[in-house]
Amino acid sequence: MKDSSEYLKKRAFFDSLLTIYGRKPVLEALEDPELPVHKLHLASSNRRDQLISRMESLAEERQIEISYLDRKELSRISKNSRQDQGVALDLALPNYGNYKAFLLKNEAKTYELLALDGITNPQNLGMIIRSACAGGVDGILLPRKGCAQIDPLVIKASTGTLFKTQILRCDILADALSDFRDSGARICGLSSHASMTLAEVPGNKPTIFVLGNETRGVSDAVTKQCNELVRIPMQNGVESLNVAVTAALISFRRQL
Amino acid sequence: MKDSSEYLKKRAFFDSLLTIYGRKPVLEALEDPELPVHKLHLASSNRRDQLISRMESLAEERQIEISYLDRKELSRISKNSRQDQGVALDLALPNYGNYKAFLLKNEAKTYELLALDGITNPQNLGMIIRSACAGGVDGILLPRKGCAQIDPLVIKASTGTLFKTQILRCDILADALSDFRDSGARICGLSSHASMTLAEVPGNKPTIFVLGNETRGVSDAVTKQCNELVRIPMQNGVESLNVAVTAALISFRRQL
Repeated sequence: MKDSSEYLKKRAFFDSLLTIYGRKPVLEALEDPELPVHKLHLASSNRRDQLISRMESLAEERQIEISYLDRKELSRISKNSRQDQGVALDLALPNYGNYKAFLLKNEAKTYELLALDGITNPQNLGMIIRSACAGGVDGILLPRKGCAQIDPLVIKASTGTLFKTQILRCDILADALSDFRDSGARICGLSSHASMTLAEVPGNKPTIFVLGNETRGVSDAVTKQCNELVRIPMQNGVESLNVAVTAALISFRRQL
Repeated sequence: MKDSSEYLKKRAFFDSLLTIYGRKPVLEALEDPELPVHKLHLASSNRRDQLISRMESLAEERQIEISYLDRKELSRISKNSRQDQGVALDLALPNYGNYKAFLLKNEAKTYELLALDGITNPQNLGMIIRSACAGGVDGILLPRKGCAQIDPLVIKASTGTLFKTQILRCDILADALSDFRDSGARICGLSSHASMTLAEVPGNKPTIFVLGNETRGVSDAVTKQCNELVRIPMQNGVESLNVAVTAALISFRRQL
């Protein structure tokens, strides 16, 4: 029993780590005193230039552990050997973690989330985070499968809002949505063919709006978990909007 | 007198032409029977391959004039010798032309326009057109100076909505806005420092919302022409939105 509870605790801790990589993003994160950092990973093959020295001294100042690894081990941590430039950083973000903790904590509340299904373009993911944060949604449900992952491009496109936004991780989106539905949330899939409009969605329940891939829309497996399909009414026969624009219209709809 | 009125007529006609270039965009435009085409320009140095033959036969079918020019003359028409691929096409769009005609025709109406000040990213320009068209604004005021121009990238990012949107051209934005203001329109510059919010802008007058450069905002010369500065209220301390997202929130604000 003790072992399994320790395992779960450890797992929850690692779930809450966001690993970023690349010299510029890592240096910027180290320079921001508000970002809680867990560990700095450096490839021992790195040439010891100014940037690396600056990272080391920032880590020392902030009492952050540094681990020196060979190139191959580092790429196992960054999961992107082509772009990590020999540098990775674990962030311990308070707003980042598995969706289950959020579900437990908020079951009785009328939260509003966005869920992303097959959003593969990092530029769009960053813009969605920025728009949703500015519009004040309570979080973004981001599956590990089938979506762009949080990498330096996404961080850049989110223009600093990533660290203010509750990012809820799950493995498979349909499974997570099923859990939310069981707990009483309304799952609304965005679809241009729906008859219900966004304005008609009542605000009396926790609600999750699912945004699908720009070309294919919401997938079949995810559509099965939706209580409603919802559309944004459009003029001039336009059939679709950029997904980050859709995210913004949902997030801001009660404030404009 | 006759000469000057013919000159003005001719000038108005050329103002209403949109010249696009590049093999793929030109072929797609020729294949769309709904797009009114004025003239096809081909560099006589083009290798006569399948694509060029297809353009020629489409032009013949549609009774569109073809002019064969040397490479240098063609680049004077495309204004982009690096990307025209020896091909340019004049579109005679009904929704495209100088703003003065729009002003004359709509003086008594309560139209709503977006005006673009220093939007240099073609991706953003395309997305603005797409969002504004879907949201139903009456037109977009696009100056020749300081903004991205309508090129194949913009057409692609607008996903077919460019040809459904009233694009009003002007040379210098501040001058055009001054004309609109004189005719009774309210000019609202978007600014994150404004005290008035978007929801507080009354709908009783023709209104132009000015969107500025993502980094620098609305320029000083244009700000001088604004009756109001307006902001979109944001949560979580977010300071700015992507400009296409802002365009969408303005365009959709009464329909969500």
